[in-house]
Amino acid sequence: MTTDFWVDGEPVSSIPVTDRGLAYGDGLFETVRVIKRDLTLPELHWQRLENSLNRLDIAVDIELLMSEVATFLSLQSSPDGVLKVLITRGSGGRGYNPAGCSGARRILSFHALPKHPDSNRNAGITLYPCSARLGHNSLAGMKHLNRLENVLARAEWGGTEFQEGLMLDLDGLLVEGTMSNLFLVKNGTLYTPALDRCGVSGVCREFILRQASGWGISVMVQELDEPALLDADEVFVCNSVNGVWPVARYRDISWQVGVVTATVRDRVLEVLNG
Amino acid sequence: MTTDFWVDGEPVSSIPVTDRGLAYGDGLFETVRVIKRDLTLPELHWQRLENSLNRLDIAVDIELLMSEVATFLSLQSSPDGVLKVLITRGSGGRGYNPAGCSGARRILSFHALPKHPDSNRNAGITLYPCSARLGHNSLAGMKHLNRLENVLARAEWGGTEFQEGLMLDLDGLLVEGTMSNLFLVKNGTLYTPALDRCGVSGVCREFILRQASGWGISVMVQELDEPALLDADEVFVCNSVNGVWPVARYRDISWQVGVVTATVRDRVLEVLNG
Repeated sequence: MTTDFWVDGEPVSSIPVTDRGLAYGDGLFETVRVIKRDLTLPELHWQRLENSLNRLDIAVDIELLMSEVATFLSLQSSPDGVLKVLITRGSGGRGYNPAGCSGARRILSFHALPKHPDSNRNAGITLYPCSARLGHNSLAGMKHLNRLENVLARAEWGGTEFQEGLMLDLDGLLVEGTMSNLFLVKNGTLYTPALDRCGVSGVCREFILRQASGWGISVMVQELDEPALLDADEVFVCNSVNGVWPVARYRDISWQVGVVTATVRDRVLEVLNG
Repeated sequence: MTTDFWVDGEPVSSIPVTDRGLAYGDGLFETVRVIKRDLTLPELHWQRLENSLNRLDIAVDIELLMSEVATFLSLQSSPDGVLKVLITRGSGGRGYNPAGCSGARRILSFHALPKHPDSNRNAGITLYPCSARLGHNSLAGMKHLNRLENVLARAEWGGTEFQEGLMLDLDGLLVEGTMSNLFLVKNGTLYTPALDRCGVSGVCREFILRQASGWGISVMVQELDEPALLDADEVFVCNSVNGVWPVARYRDISWQVGVVTATVRDRVLEVLNG
């Protein structure tokens, strides 16, 4: 349950209907795991936010935002939870044209940590094969507010049999889960799809890419197709809120939790536990 | 200037920050020219809205919405203007998953008719060649809230030299203007890009497609590339608020306002003037 909202530093839970985030998805967001009132993986979250703001040419005072976030977290009744930082280009401009708009709007919210069965992390999950495909575009990598494809993919299944869904792109290549990134293991090497045409460059994925060699694991970022997934020795998904979930089943294929997956899962968990 | 807003039938100008339209662009909109308190091209607007709601699986009572719009327009101080109808999936669900969300939110706003020089319609406009490309995806045709590509394209130029920008797709094929659809004329026949992989299926475009044969003009919907544009006898853009604007210049090529363009422009104008 949501316990608190701030808009531009004030305890407000609504925005004007003129906001461009609503009108056009003109903005972006970060979802950050908070432990003992501290952000986990803070540098990677701030870096991605700042890079995406630059790509969208939205001006935000990052120092002010970081200070505002610290104050916001200090006021929460729970020390642990999920912080959502949502930035829009604000109100105004003329139609799509952003010239003359009011400037960025900063929206903070704090939510309870999601409750998932321990088995997701320990025994692994079953992955749903989504029909909805991710289109190619120049917005790839950013966690922007244009997320209808993810919504439609996630709406494809209900119930508790599947814990995440796999999304392919228009060419049938692997991209990601609806709310996570995807890794394969083959002969001890990690592989994850390149995200230059679609997908979100997740903070947990980035952490793994930067740390893997230090854990003695080599990692390749490249085009990967569905046969490569079916042929993998191990498979997992990850995000910065839930960490690593081994994939135990996809279509007719089952996997055990392998040693590379277990290593990455446990290293990520150390960081996400603060 | 905006003169009024309604949210779910109440005179309110804000929405909760939990709205999925803000969070994910999970919704769609219509922008309708209003003359003497009547919608212009109402059947085509309602049809597109209903089709898109079905594609997104958002439930809205269209009869209630139409009745609400009529009341809303009756209360405006000006009989003429632009009505924006924005529908979101509402608040709730869990992350991208829409299951359990509160149900659609209806947001109405009324704006003054945009002021453009008469020369746009009479002498024609200069089209800016946007660098931003439209990606391919399964959302093509809908006027959904995921419009960052249009925002970034429109942000590419300022000033008064260009009145609209042309957007190509990732393969370099013609798609549309940032806020309009595109038509070419060659040897007396109308051509407009197919919109099965990207672009908005505009109401004015649809009106022209349905009426052209009655005006004695044949029309083809197909893949078109930039050389076809440069080789065209006449070029125009259109939308349901501004009608038809002949294109007088694109890159190094200039065009006169031809007889087919003038015919279509004048027929559209009759309808848009109520």
